[in-house]
Amino acid sequence: MTPQVCDQDRAGVDSSFKAIAVNTPSTLQRWQRSPQQIISFVPTQDHSSFGLRPALSEHAISDLPSLTWGRGADFILDFGIHMVGYLSFLLTSSGEHMDAPCRLRLTFGESPLDVTMGMEGVHTWISTAWLPDEVINVDECPQVISLKRRYAFRYLRVEVIDTSPKFKVSFSDIKCECTSAISQDHRIDAIDFNDQLLQDIDHVSISTLRDCMQSVFEDGPRRDRRLWIGDLRLQAQANYRTLRDFDLVKRCIFQFAAVAREDGSVPACLFHTPRLAPSTDYIVDYDALFSVIVYDYVVASGDLETGHTLWPTVLSCVQRALAHLNPVTHIFEVNRSTGFKFLDWAKGLDKSAGSHGLLLFCLRAINSLAERLGKEPPFTDIVSKMAEGATVFLRDGVFVSGPENQLSYASAAWLVLSDAFPRSTAREALVATMKHPAAVKPLTPYLWHYVCEALLMVSCYDECIKLIKEYWGGMVKAGADTFWECYDAEDPKASPYGDVRNNSFCHAWSCTPTYFLRGELLRKVGGRVTGRVAMGELDGRWIERSIGAVSSRALVGVAERNAVE
Amino acid sequence: MTPQVCDQDRAGVDSSFKAIAVNTPSTLQRWQRSPQQIISFVPTQDHSSFGLRPALSEHAISDLPSLTWGRGADFILDFGIHMVGYLSFLLTSSGEHMDAPCRLRLTFGESPLDVTMGMEGVHTWISTAWLPDEVINVDECPQVISLKRRYAFRYLRVEVIDTSPKFKVSFSDIKCECTSAISQDHRIDAIDFNDQLLQDIDHVSISTLRDCMQSVFEDGPRRDRRLWIGDLRLQAQANYRTLRDFDLVKRCIFQFAAVAREDGSVPACLFHTPRLAPSTDYIVDYDALFSVIVYDYVVASGDLETGHTLWPTVLSCVQRALAHLNPVTHIFEVNRSTGFKFLDWAKGLDKSAGSHGLLLFCLRAINSLAERLGKEPPFTDIVSKMAEGATVFLRDGVFVSGPENQLSYASAAWLVLSDAFPRSTAREALVATMKHPAAVKPLTPYLWHYVCEALLMVSCYDECIKLIKEYWGGMVKAGADTFWECYDAEDPKASPYGDVRNNSFCHAWSCTPTYFLRGELLRKVGGRVTGRVAMGELDGRWIERSIGAVSSRALVGVAERNAVE
Repeated sequence: MTPQVCDQDRAGVDSSFKAIAVNTPSTLQRWQRSPQQIISFVPTQDHSSFGLRPALSEHAISDLPSLTWGRGADFILDFGIHMVGYLSFLLTSSGEHMDAPCRLRLTFGESPLDVTMGMEGVHTWISTAWLPDEVINVDECPQVISLKRRYAFRYLRVEVIDTSPKFKVSFSDIKCECTSAISQDHRIDAIDFNDQLLQDIDHVSISTLRDCMQSVFEDGPRRDRRLWIGDLRLQAQANYRTLRDFDLVKRCIFQFAAVAREDGSVPACLFHTPRLAPSTDYIVDYDALFSVIVYDYVVASGDLETGHTLWPTVLSCVQRALAHLNPVTHIFEVNRSTGFKFLDWAKGLDKSAGSHGLLLFCLRAINSLAERLGKEPPFTDIVSKMAEGATVFLRDGVFVSGPENQLSYASAAWLVLSDAFPRSTAREALVATMKHPAAVKPLTPYLWHYVCEALLMVSCYDECIKLIKEYWGGMVKAGADTFWECYDAEDPKASPYGDVRNNSFCHAWSCTPTYFLRGELLRKVGGRVTGRVAMGELDGRWIERSIGAVSSRALVGVAERNAVE
Repeated sequence: MTPQVCDQDRAGVDSSFKAIAVNTPSTLQRWQRSPQQIISFVPTQDHSSFGLRPALSEHAISDLPSLTWGRGADFILDFGIHMVGYLSFLLTSSGEHMDAPCRLRLTFGESPLDVTMGMEGVHTWISTAWLPDEVINVDECPQVISLKRRYAFRYLRVEVIDTSPKFKVSFSDIKCECTSAISQDHRIDAIDFNDQLLQDIDHVSISTLRDCMQSVFEDGPRRDRRLWIGDLRLQAQANYRTLRDFDLVKRCIFQFAAVAREDGSVPACLFHTPRLAPSTDYIVDYDALFSVIVYDYVVASGDLETGHTLWPTVLSCVQRALAHLNPVTHIFEVNRSTGFKFLDWAKGLDKSAGSHGLLLFCLRAINSLAERLGKEPPFTDIVSKMAEGATVFLRDGVFVSGPENQLSYASAAWLVLSDAFPRSTAREALVATMKHPAAVKPLTPYLWHYVCEALLMVSCYDECIKLIKEYWGGMVKAGADTFWECYDAEDPKASPYGDVRNNSFCHAWSCTPTYFLRGELLRKVGGRVTGRVAMGELDGRWIERSIGAVSSRALVGVAERNAVE
């Protein structure tokens, strides 16, 4: 298949903002990785690792080029680390003759489930075209097979659907040309956290961020590879404290500004390819958060010019949220105006209090941005009124929302972040909410991030560290080398889509622990900067450890599998 | 997938013969065809047409670019004629956004069964990798999709496995870049056979031949795309009386000579790509028939030089067959030497008599070739002795073979062709065999060809015409526009491979009716040459008729299908 993408420009895209985005340099970096091991997975009672445990196959990876495989052969390659890139390999035939094509199914696994469950019978409400398998037919060998599509994976399952009785095939020179905006030579602070789990959480955060940093900050490189505002804010924050690629953030901000709608609101997400275009998805809180992204960027980069250029967009992006305010009480009322309010996917979440807090948080950021730019802060009056109005949500020492006085982490986190209450009041309300058995918990890492951000704002360092170790640490213990789109410690097959095989296991909105660990928490956890280290070296250490971990389990695994069989 | 075929030369290939093959020009011709109709197939009680009948869909082909298709959509395009080539189309998305890939299954149908049965659960002893379906995933639209693999097909079934709720896809500019050694401008004698069925049989023969004529004379362009000696002889004969591409025959002959084995025998088939190489398949009778191919070629082309160059190969290619002769009786004994004897796939066929006849036929051809080349005929003595010995197979007016005195069309045809008997004796034996209820019938069109050749040798013109009309005419009536690898009038799903979905419906060894119709039978059937006509014009007429045929049935078909539903 030859991808000849026909480029067409689109009406309604602001050409001056688009030009700034296009002219902000971002080169996709490329490097190669090879598979490290031929493995299989054996069942385990431990739910935390998908109920599976890797075991070495009978074959060493160095034997791969000399192994031959015929109809029905099935093996898994482990590259040792999550990657985003393009697969190629040399397919060779042996035997009498290649007198028929070779039909292969290649399944790209971010998780062990991808390469063990098969891709049949998946019922999800999002597209099954996202499933990471390809069936290819090869007429002649030897042939270098280079797949044109990009995949996100650590494991590659190879199924030889058929050859013929006269020939088998061999695989050699298997490699992934990895891509990211961040090269292997890119250097970041090397930090000793004096705690292996925190060390791992920091590394997995950075790997997640790096693999999502492509031509834009992608939502997830496996699926839904678009630029979303909610994810972008979190990625940009983590980026400022780690990889510090300011240009990529700038590109993305201007892309959003370029596709702003007629009423000045900003779409929740955009498509940067095959041509820059807004998605029809719209989220009131994402729209408003665009202002914070610009503010964060100006603070982190010192690029005041961008602040000036985008000032009109910053002002317009909160208008639809502001339309939700009761003109008398200045309280955010979810049904007063239109547009989806997100905050989190938690079921039954009442979004009044959280949205109020979020909007107030955004308006304060705009006022701060105005000060940086030497402008008059535009929202001082409304900020005062909203802060005053916010007291309606504080009842009996906790934050409540809606007619049922619902307690939720979402309300608590955003009202803390709104800075509408004295710190001690805010801290007590947040802690009380988190201890309350009826409080609606976050479903997504996205909201868990804001819970952490709120905890730090009220100096709850230990609580924040505990949360990070439990939640993100839980994924690490379950085998993550990038953080997931969703995580349920009790159910390794949990999915918001109805089937875990459509989940993304490297997802932008879960990449922020490094932001906290390298920021406010660095001294609290006793971490210290020990120097600088290249990304390639960090990756290499991770591969070495992940392979070592498998190797040490290998003999047990093989023995147990044989016993099971 | 980028096909980068790594070319390696092979030890054991005669470089001087190979050089001649390489230097004999053969340009692959290319032209384009577009789909003519969107159709469906409806069940019918008529077994002769696969139990299916085409019916127009509700959509005109001109509507195709404006039709949109989402998850689960399924439609069939009819190109109006069998083709060999490369498919491309423009895939466009419509709706809110292409926010997911589009996964398509494309199934290339030579027969209606291919595009109605599905390709799941095929159990055959040859490779299922030959099944003519591809699953492709497209990330971005609009995109020109150009499939790199070559297919043989008339129908294209398109299944949209998934899009997303936000977009659908459209197909436009669908075309097949057809290939053959024979261009659309190539002109042949236009013949009026004064009989529509014979006219059609002639046309379908030529289409079959043309679609098998690629870089070599292929066995079948759908599957097993190699050069086989048995098929080559039949194709070359049909070619001399129709398309008259002598160079392609010359190339193929020299390719076989180049891959002759150490003992001078010639493999049953060869691979011309990715590098010239013999197959390990060996058939005693095919080996011997190489000599006849050379003789036929020299006679048809007048190229004596090739005869001289290949003379040593001609002499050596009959040696393994000769090793089967009893040194005293000069009778071919199947178990006296090694090597598979084929003649036909008919079950339980005793091959002594047929092999005796075939070898004698070959030796006579070599003697004739010697005379053309001004050489001493090398096999005059053994020809006499074998002709005399052949009388052992004549018993009670029929030809018998083996310990059970088996009657078969194979024995009869080849003993007639061996010219060992007076014409009247031969004729009576052949006719008696064909009337005998216990005679083993041919299973393949390949042997039916030699039955026809034998009938003509003994002047049984009417019997030959009747056979052609019944056997090949049966395929035409069943909807063939190229002749099939196998045909069972009683069972449209008959297959030598266990599943009809691996059958080839354009197969070289069934292309020879035109050889007879334009040769010995021309005057017998009252045919007359009316001028010259280009292949493209012949194809155009066929498409017009085949589309017209569908159209006339269309309303009935749609009405009936609706009634069924």
